[in-house]
Amino acid sequence: MIARRFLSFHQRVFTSSLRVMSSIPPPECLFKDINIPNRQLFGPGPSTMPQVIGSTQAQPLLGHLHPEFVEIMSQVRLGLQYVFKTRNAYTLAVSGTGHAGMEAAILNLAERGETLLVAKAGIWGQRAADLGRRLGLKVEVVEVGDGQIVPLSAIEEAATRVKPAVIFVCHGESSTGIAQPLEGLSKIAHDNGGLLLVDTVASLGGAPFDMDALGVDCVYSATQKVLNAPPGLAPISFSDRAIQKIKKRKERVASFYFDALELGNYWGCDGEMRRYHHTAPISTVYALREALAIIAKKGIDTLIQQHLDTATGLYSQLGEAGLSMFVERKEDRLPCLHTVKVPEGVDWKGVQTALFQQGIEFAGGLGATTGKIFRIGTFGQNSEPEKAKEVVNKFIQVVKEQSKL
Amino acid sequence: MIARRFLSFHQRVFTSSLRVMSSIPPPECLFKDINIPNRQLFGPGPSTMPQVIGSTQAQPLLGHLHPEFVEIMSQVRLGLQYVFKTRNAYTLAVSGTGHAGMEAAILNLAERGETLLVAKAGIWGQRAADLGRRLGLKVEVVEVGDGQIVPLSAIEEAATRVKPAVIFVCHGESSTGIAQPLEGLSKIAHDNGGLLLVDTVASLGGAPFDMDALGVDCVYSATQKVLNAPPGLAPISFSDRAIQKIKKRKERVASFYFDALELGNYWGCDGEMRRYHHTAPISTVYALREALAIIAKKGIDTLIQQHLDTATGLYSQLGEAGLSMFVERKEDRLPCLHTVKVPEGVDWKGVQTALFQQGIEFAGGLGATTGKIFRIGTFGQNSEPEKAKEVVNKFIQVVKEQSKL
Repeated sequence: MIARRFLSFHQRVFTSSLRVMSSIPPPECLFKDINIPNRQLFGPGPSTMPQVIGSTQAQPLLGHLHPEFVEIMSQVRLGLQYVFKTRNAYTLAVSGTGHAGMEAAILNLAERGETLLVAKAGIWGQRAADLGRRLGLKVEVVEVGDGQIVPLSAIEEAATRVKPAVIFVCHGESSTGIAQPLEGLSKIAHDNGGLLLVDTVASLGGAPFDMDALGVDCVYSATQKVLNAPPGLAPISFSDRAIQKIKKRKERVASFYFDALELGNYWGCDGEMRRYHHTAPISTVYALREALAIIAKKGIDTLIQQHLDTATGLYSQLGEAGLSMFVERKEDRLPCLHTVKVPEGVDWKGVQTALFQQGIEFAGGLGATTGKIFRIGTFGQNSEPEKAKEVVNKFIQVVKEQSKL
Repeated sequence: MIARRFLSFHQRVFTSSLRVMSSIPPPECLFKDINIPNRQLFGPGPSTMPQVIGSTQAQPLLGHLHPEFVEIMSQVRLGLQYVFKTRNAYTLAVSGTGHAGMEAAILNLAERGETLLVAKAGIWGQRAADLGRRLGLKVEVVEVGDGQIVPLSAIEEAATRVKPAVIFVCHGESSTGIAQPLEGLSKIAHDNGGLLLVDTVASLGGAPFDMDALGVDCVYSATQKVLNAPPGLAPISFSDRAIQKIKKRKERVASFYFDALELGNYWGCDGEMRRYHHTAPISTVYALREALAIIAKKGIDTLIQQHLDTATGLYSQLGEAGLSMFVERKEDRLPCLHTVKVPEGVDWKGVQTALFQQGIEFAGGLGATTGKIFRIGTFGQNSEPEKAKEVVNKFIQVVKEQSKL
């Protein structure tokens, strides 16, 4: 006891924590090397990351308000405006993966008690509806069968009836492989006093999209699909109309992390007087900058055209092999994520496993489409025609082998 | 018109978007190389990242449910249990930076209308209180002056009075440099029917902490401080008591992204039947795994002791140079983030700028302490005695030079 009185406060605490510590030894698995095999990612994402994007993450960290990092953030904003095709000031990346973009969008655009109208063509519409209910919104759903697009007329009818604060549409529904047409939707939203929100997680850069021409009020996406960057950021853009609505909110946004005006200030959307908001994921921002640089050099429309051309080739390739696309009408198909019917008698899991053993990821369905379809992602550099053709050939071969079993 | 009818749907959309595109050219800045200078980060974080952690991010992406990635997640969970000193099953990393950890914790632990008691000793208590109000909680604040710790008696008095669902305490208040004592707090929380939530963003691994021995119900942290990993993940752990409360909630958590039970399932906290929840930031998870491996090899208590020893040396070093610590009592100081009074007549910004030009980041104050203090972070590998001593010497020299001006 006497000896203890001579120990400093820190030492005392430390001594007691040492005693407790001994019951939790350091995990043995952390003494071994990390195991990361090289794999070609042709599923619904993440997609294969080019080495030049990965290696930028090995560079030293900068502080989140250092001038060079602020400059990189500005470059990311310009790059995102370029790929979204928008001049919106409030264009930035939320520090979370794609779903964080959905949360940030709905949290900011709608207030408790307001109505969210969801055009549901698969799991992402379902997710948005579920989130709306969690957030205390009234949720109205316009639903279609899997593999269908939601008709404009159905959205218009519902909007006229419920006067939604926000209409949610998923551009590229990755659970079914449809590309939802977006023309005419902003007029419906605006005519009924609301805003148009579009999820482009699985479509941005891989299907035609023009935020400003379409009159979209908020769009979000992810980095690990066509952009070929690592997951961890959700690009997002708000129209002036959306920002006006947010500025007039009665209640504050039920999040600080996702507050669009706070985020916008940190990202320099309202001028150069940036306040500290949170510590951005520095390495991931570097990677997104490099991914956007690749697209700027290639040209966003060249990239989209590459996806369209590769999709056309892939439809023929699969058709010649006797395989059928899940989405019947060609014009309804998402050009960067292809859904193929599992032929009768074929074990889809067996196909997936066989390809996985060859170092290639292909996916099965998601949600209601599980067991019914294969999903083939040709995102970004995986849409290079020769590469896609070769990998799809391997897929066809494995399906054929499995059919014989 | 006739020609247009022969164009496919995709081509038509594409043609129209091409026309619009031409008004937004690719940003010129993305044609230049990215500019990332090498800098020693001795501010409040992010801290300098060792090359071995950075380079793991250059490795190829895995899918978010690939067996090797699931194995890495398991290793991260074990590593986090080790550094938090807990056997809690629900120990994982939220896919966002430190503040996302705060949001996840409060969102899950409290329901609208319940009371959050905040022990406020600086900006992080203020942030938690503000967030509580955004989330529709009743917020009670126990406040002390900058540089003070919150007395246990004041927390006990308030808790007995307001019966909080959650007591929030910031262990390492990085805006003032105090280390809040945690002993006895869980008893106060539990005796009054509530839970104890501790923010260890700036303290984990740099100050004694033992989750289970202290009876903490929820703790969160960040990766870019003592762990020396890139920002982008918020380690978090929930006690069984916390999980029981969450399972009995009347309303669902007002977030899907931050829902503890959903996250816990994805991270394998409730068994190996993992559902897809979101796409984890793959590269950042690799980096966190490597950061935890470094700590496992060194030993968490050796690491904490290194911070304590370096802090003691630094107090002498600064004292000999005639500089005063902002936090008066040694036992109240955070051993990994040191706050030093700006001497009269010294331009703190000038000091910061001069060091920055030498490639070293030191910070000024934050919030109410702006202009009053310097903040020196010796996080993780920056707490190696020789390294810290050398950098602090440079700081002292610059302060002396500035004093003469």
